[in-house]
Amino acid sequence: MSKFWSKVVHGLTPYTPGEQVQMPGLVKLNTNENPYGPSPKAIAAMQEAAGDGLRKYSDPSNAVLKDAVARRFGLAREQVFVGNSSDEVLAHTFHALLRHDLPLLTPDISYSFYPTYCSLYGIEAVHVPLNERFEIDVADYAQPCGAIILANPNAPTGIALPLAQIEALLAAHPDQVVVIDEAYVDFGAQSAAALLGRYDNLLVIQTLSKSRSLAGLRVGFALGHPDLIAGLERVKNSFNCYPLGQVQQAGAVAALDDVAYMAQTSQAIIASRAWLTAQMQALGFEVLPSQANFIFTRHPRHDGAQLAAALRERAILVRHFKAARIDQFLRITIGTDEECAKLVDALKGILS
Amino acid sequence: MSKFWSKVVHGLTPYTPGEQVQMPGLVKLNTNENPYGPSPKAIAAMQEAAGDGLRKYSDPSNAVLKDAVARRFGLAREQVFVGNSSDEVLAHTFHALLRHDLPLLTPDISYSFYPTYCSLYGIEAVHVPLNERFEIDVADYAQPCGAIILANPNAPTGIALPLAQIEALLAAHPDQVVVIDEAYVDFGAQSAAALLGRYDNLLVIQTLSKSRSLAGLRVGFALGHPDLIAGLERVKNSFNCYPLGQVQQAGAVAALDDVAYMAQTSQAIIASRAWLTAQMQALGFEVLPSQANFIFTRHPRHDGAQLAAALRERAILVRHFKAARIDQFLRITIGTDEECAKLVDALKGILS
Repeated sequence: MSKFWSKVVHGLTPYTPGEQVQMPGLVKLNTNENPYGPSPKAIAAMQEAAGDGLRKYSDPSNAVLKDAVARRFGLAREQVFVGNSSDEVLAHTFHALLRHDLPLLTPDISYSFYPTYCSLYGIEAVHVPLNERFEIDVADYAQPCGAIILANPNAPTGIALPLAQIEALLAAHPDQVVVIDEAYVDFGAQSAAALLGRYDNLLVIQTLSKSRSLAGLRVGFALGHPDLIAGLERVKNSFNCYPLGQVQQAGAVAALDDVAYMAQTSQAIIASRAWLTAQMQALGFEVLPSQANFIFTRHPRHDGAQLAAALRERAILVRHFKAARIDQFLRITIGTDEECAKLVDALKGILS
Repeated sequence: MSKFWSKVVHGLTPYTPGEQVQMPGLVKLNTNENPYGPSPKAIAAMQEAAGDGLRKYSDPSNAVLKDAVARRFGLAREQVFVGNSSDEVLAHTFHALLRHDLPLLTPDISYSFYPTYCSLYGIEAVHVPLNERFEIDVADYAQPCGAIILANPNAPTGIALPLAQIEALLAAHPDQVVVIDEAYVDFGAQSAAALLGRYDNLLVIQTLSKSRSLAGLRVGFALGHPDLIAGLERVKNSFNCYPLGQVQQAGAVAALDDVAYMAQTSQAIIASRAWLTAQMQALGFEVLPSQANFIFTRHPRHDGAQLAAALRERAILVRHFKAARIDQFLRITIGTDEECAKLVDALKGILS
């Protein structure tokens, strides 16, 4: 608390990111990082961009990067917004598109940064409960609202919503922006980007942190009607005209263009997820059906917080949320097969 | 305009950055970039950081980078805030520290992004006129206010305020935050960082874009009392927990530590500025006394906009602002000696 702070600062409850612990031999399954490195082509592009050219500002319109995103989705440059991670893209989206007289609808269990954005920008939110299977039921969103945001697959459940249900949501709310946050979409879910031609109220947000293995680079993007993108650009250019440096843009373009590499690493993670899910179930865990690069799991006879602590003692980090309805669950990132096997062995020891 | 926009978006007047034109043989003196490349040590550090480690998130506390900044200024980590360029640091500063019931005081002629931040965050500002010599007179700030921000050296004038006058301003406003934006301080002005031990209302903001030749990397920082830094951290962690990627942090640390390189390149720019100033004066230009890596200059018999257009026809870009009081001026970045000579030759042709 300080007399120098603006009023808004006193009421904030900042987001708590997963720990970035440095420890030899640590199995780090707490922040949904990709166990495989980024595309070698992306690394080469970044090393080339790290040179004397950095004395100059990067292109504030981000044209080359926007075109790379547009190519990937068969869109025009005017339908693409890019930012310094999908968290920044989300922040600008809350500010530019989600602050209205009527409340924002969002699931009661979802990315825990959403309520933080609401407090930052003074947005009233209604938290719509997931059903008893922890699924989003779009029928529950048939209520007056200013806008809607949900993650697909949802976090931290990993459960994906079929495209037909997202389309039903879009059709039922033609005068409200519907944001689909697809951070984890490349691990088995369907992207709502396929619906962009028909719905001017749809904004899709993706990141290069997960399926492109570039969490440490900070690049995200949004796809939508040019009017929505123009609103985001107005806020972005009132905040920071050059959010992405040259190395970021070069690496992101090469990563987006290396389609084969992403497909290969994502398939490996999907296979590991199936193996880990079966192993966990054999140990008595309930595992929600995941289309993400993590599983969300609980044991009927073992407390979630205690399990997380016991794993931590064995140098394995997983994420536990002290939140209503989900405090018995663990969110576990899909690591390499070796990391998954270490986790299973550790759990066997803890449960026995 | 779109029905989907939040109300705030309609009233924004986004910042217009200087053009990033690509043209062979272009002499680009319009965005105050450093004509010399970044420290070779910074380039090596970035190339090393551009690897498999990017699959992981960067440290959200930015501890290593904060310590590098703290080392440079003899401060503690808790007195340092870092962000994705000083523009992002400024944006968070406006949001976290400058929105109060009483208006913000800022010079009528200064960094043209300040009014944009005010419209983004709904901050009322009083624009205090520079005196007739285009200087800031701190006596003019003796009025009720919520906070104060000024650039030192000021932009686009390049004129520096002596440290004693900044101290007078701090002492006269013990209950208001006073922000000193020192983007250009390393080219001859005195940093207010020397006053941090005595004033808890002082926030100093700097960038690596100018004297460290890293405009294309996007790193900036703020220095101040831990309470001010804590307010900035609260807003930052409600916006984007990881604004700086690993390549950015590695390059920034190496650049900050390479003190000798910055001293050498800054001295070269200061020498070129003296030469260019003398040449311009010989051509009849009035040149404001600059402590920045640019000069602000007008000719008593030649229109500023016309001069900028004539230079552009000769593939030389300078910055002209269509703004009250300064529309006869050109802001010209100090380039290499060869670029400065080309500019002088071109002006000789235009004026003859």
